[in-house]
Order: sequence, then C-alpha cells, then structure tokens
Amino acid sequence: MASDAEEACFEAGIKFGALYHQFAGTPVSPESAPSLETAIEESIENQPFCESVTVDILTEKLDTSHGYTELTGEYMEVEIVVDYEGREVVAEMAMRDGYPLMELASVE
Amino acid sequence: MASDAEEACFEAGIKFGALYHQFAGTPVSPESAPSLETAIEESIENQPFCESVTVDILTEKLDTSHGYTELTGEYMEVEIVVDYEGREVVAEMAMRDGYPLMELASVE
Amino acid sequence: MASDAEEACFEAGIKFGALYHQFAGTPVSPESAPSLETAIEESIENQPFCESVTVDILTEKLDTSHGYTELTGEYMEVEIVVDYEGREVVAEMAMRDGYPLMELASVE
Amino acid sequence: MASDAEEACFEAGIKFGALYHQFAGTPVSPESAPSLETAIEESIENQPFCESVTVDILTEKLDTSHGYTELTGEYMEVEIVVDYEGREVVAEMAMRDGYPLMELASVE
Repeated sequence: MASDAEEACFEAGIKFGALYHQFAGTPVSPESAPSLETAIEESIENQPFCESVTVDILTEKLDTSHGYTELTGEYMEVEIVVDYEGREVVAEMAMRDGYPLMELASVE
Repeated sequence: MASDAEEACFEAGIKFGALYHQFAGTPVSPESAPSLETAIEESIENQPFCESVTVDILTEKLDTSHGYTELTGEYMEVEIVVDYEGREVVAEMAMRDGYPLMELASVE
Repeated sequence: MASDAEEACFEAGIKFGALYHQFAGTPVSPESAPSLETAIEESIENQPFCESVTVDILTEKLDTSHGYTELTGEYMEVEIVVDYEGREVVAEMAMRDGYPLMELASVE
Repeated sequence: MASDAEEACFEAGIKFGALYHQFAGTPVSPESAPSLETAIEESIENQPFCESVTVDILTEKLDTSHGYTELTGEYMEVEIVVDYEGREVVAEMAMRDGYPLMELASVE
C-alpha cells in the first residue's frame, strides 16, 4: 500500500503531466497570455485533491516574430499545491538547462 | 493554384481542427467554463487570417457527477470567421446525430 | 526533502497525466488502434525514469457508428512502471464508476 | 453555398489543424519516431474524406540532448490528400522562415 504522502506526490505528478500536455502547443501572444493563464489554472484546479495552480506565462520571452508562438515549457513557470488526506505537496516547473523540469518542492 | 475563397476555406478548417484537438480533454466545470471559453477564443484568434472565434460551452449539459468532466464536442458550440484577401468564410461546429460536425456556413 | 519513493510516485503521476492529456481526443478505430497503442507506449517511455508503458485500447468498446471515435479513458487500460533510484512504482488506469481512475498499484 | 472544391479545402484544413494540435508536444526520439509517424497517419486517416496522410518526422533534426524532445512543426513534414465529392485537394506542411506553414499544394 502507498502512504498518504506517496499518494499526494502521485496526484501532484498527474496534475503536472496533464497541465503540460493539455496546453503545450496552444497559440499564445502577450495579449492572450492572461486569459490562458487563468484558464489553465481553473481547469486543472478541477482535478481531485488539487488545492491551487499558479501559472505564469513569461510574456517577455515569447517569440512574436510571427505575431504569436506555441506554448511550451520554455515560456511558463507553474506551481501546483495538492492536498491528499492532509498531506500537502508543492510541486514546481521551471527551465533547467533547456529542459522544463517538474520537481517536488515540499512534502508535508 | 487555389482561389482566394478556397484558401479562406482551408484556413477556416485549420482553425477548427486546431481548436478542437488542442482543447478536447481539458477538465471543465460550470465554474471554470467562462475562463476556458475566453482562452480558447483568444488563443485561436492569434492564428493568421482569423477574424473572430466564438465559443459557447454548454454548461447545463456538463456531466458534473465527478465535479467536472472533459471538454468534448458534445459540450460546445463554436463559430469561426476567417478573412483571406477579402474573402470571408464563416464556419460552425455543433452536434449532429452524436457527432461534432464542423461545417461551412458561408463563403463570401 | 522528498524521499526516493515519493519522487518515484511523482514521476509516475507525471507520465499518467502526460499520456492521458496528450492522446485524449485522438481519432481511433479498431483498425488504427494497434499503431496508436504502440506510439503511446514508445513516446511516454522516452520520459525520464520510465521503465515501461503498456496501453490496451478496448477496441470492442469503441463507438464506430461514425467509423471512428475519439480516444478517452473509457476506451483504454494503462499500466506504467517507473524506477527512481531503485524504487519501483507501478501505476494503473481503468474505469471506475464512469471515471478514468489513475491509481498506484505498488510502491517497492 | 460552398462549392465542392471549397468544402474539400475546408476538410483538408481541419485535418491539418487536428493533426498538428493533437500531436504537438508528444515526446519523441529517433527510436520512437517511426511508430509515431504511423499512428499519426492512421489516426487522421480515420477522419471523413481523408484519402491519405504522410508524416515524415525529421529524426536527424531532433534535439536529443535530453534523450528526447517534444514534437513540433520544426520536426515534421506532412502531406494530406482529401477527396470531397470527387474534388481532390493536396495540402502540405513544412517550415518556412521558422514557422510551420500549412498550405494548399493543389485543388483538382
């Protein structure tokens, strides 16, 4: 049997994988970034055990040479908080060496 | 060579396929539907030749027995207007016999 | 700091969320199901710490009244094995009460 | 009313938008590229009026510094043939100036 902390970590991972692969590829510009941030946050917060999702699209980094670009990990920072039976997990995504690394920030 | 009207129809199709396959599967509830409608509209409007996108998520139809459901064609109506070199195409999506049918409404 | 077992569970969750939200919505028929199963398995196995992915598309359940349908959790069973620093996690997805439930099967 | 040629162009556009936004973001490596090519082709060929889909993932271009990368337009060339009431449309996607351009190659 998995512990509650392990279950919480599993749930946090699900939210991260879902968020990334649902929205990667979405056309985004500096003008449309705020509505996309809100929609990503509110859609993933629907999922079970998800306390909060915070998405920051790095609009200053967006390639706008064609007016818009496709959302990838390069252009966003994400924090997700999961609560499973009282165990709280915080997970984050940011770029590390050109790779959008998702990692556990805390398990309490 | 394709005519401008044919190019306009091609562009309208691209927007519809993109919209549907980018956002199908997104977790959605009656509470989060408005932000998702706005994000879909603004993201697809970024694409070339796209004049306007109108998305109506049919919140009264959403299955909320698990608190939220995944967005599919069953739960949305969409209108897209494309302008290509002065030729305007209006395309729509709605359910027909259980299938989310995308169709040209007008080519002018 | 998270334990290796917690990290393994987090990684297993990422793979599940990624798999589901990358491929949900893909057009699928009984004829095309085998190639889609293989592609899902091989693509997710690329991800870090992922030992194996097994996808079974339930072709007998596919609604073929329009020739094909869109892939959802209703139509697939999945097992994912993750190894993180020697800790092995097995996670599974199957339908429970109309909901595609992802759960930890073992943490060793 | 739209002409058959215009309908054919609309259908070709739908397939292109669907293909791109369904599969963009999929983890891909030189080893997994062949199964993904086949799955993309067979899944999109399920759609109405779609005669053939040919996908070439440019494995020599894939960034493998992390073992795999995410599929984007930069890494694939696509040809789609649609037949609508006897009107055949060929559409193609390839990179132009850093942008994955989808265009009509012929309308017959």
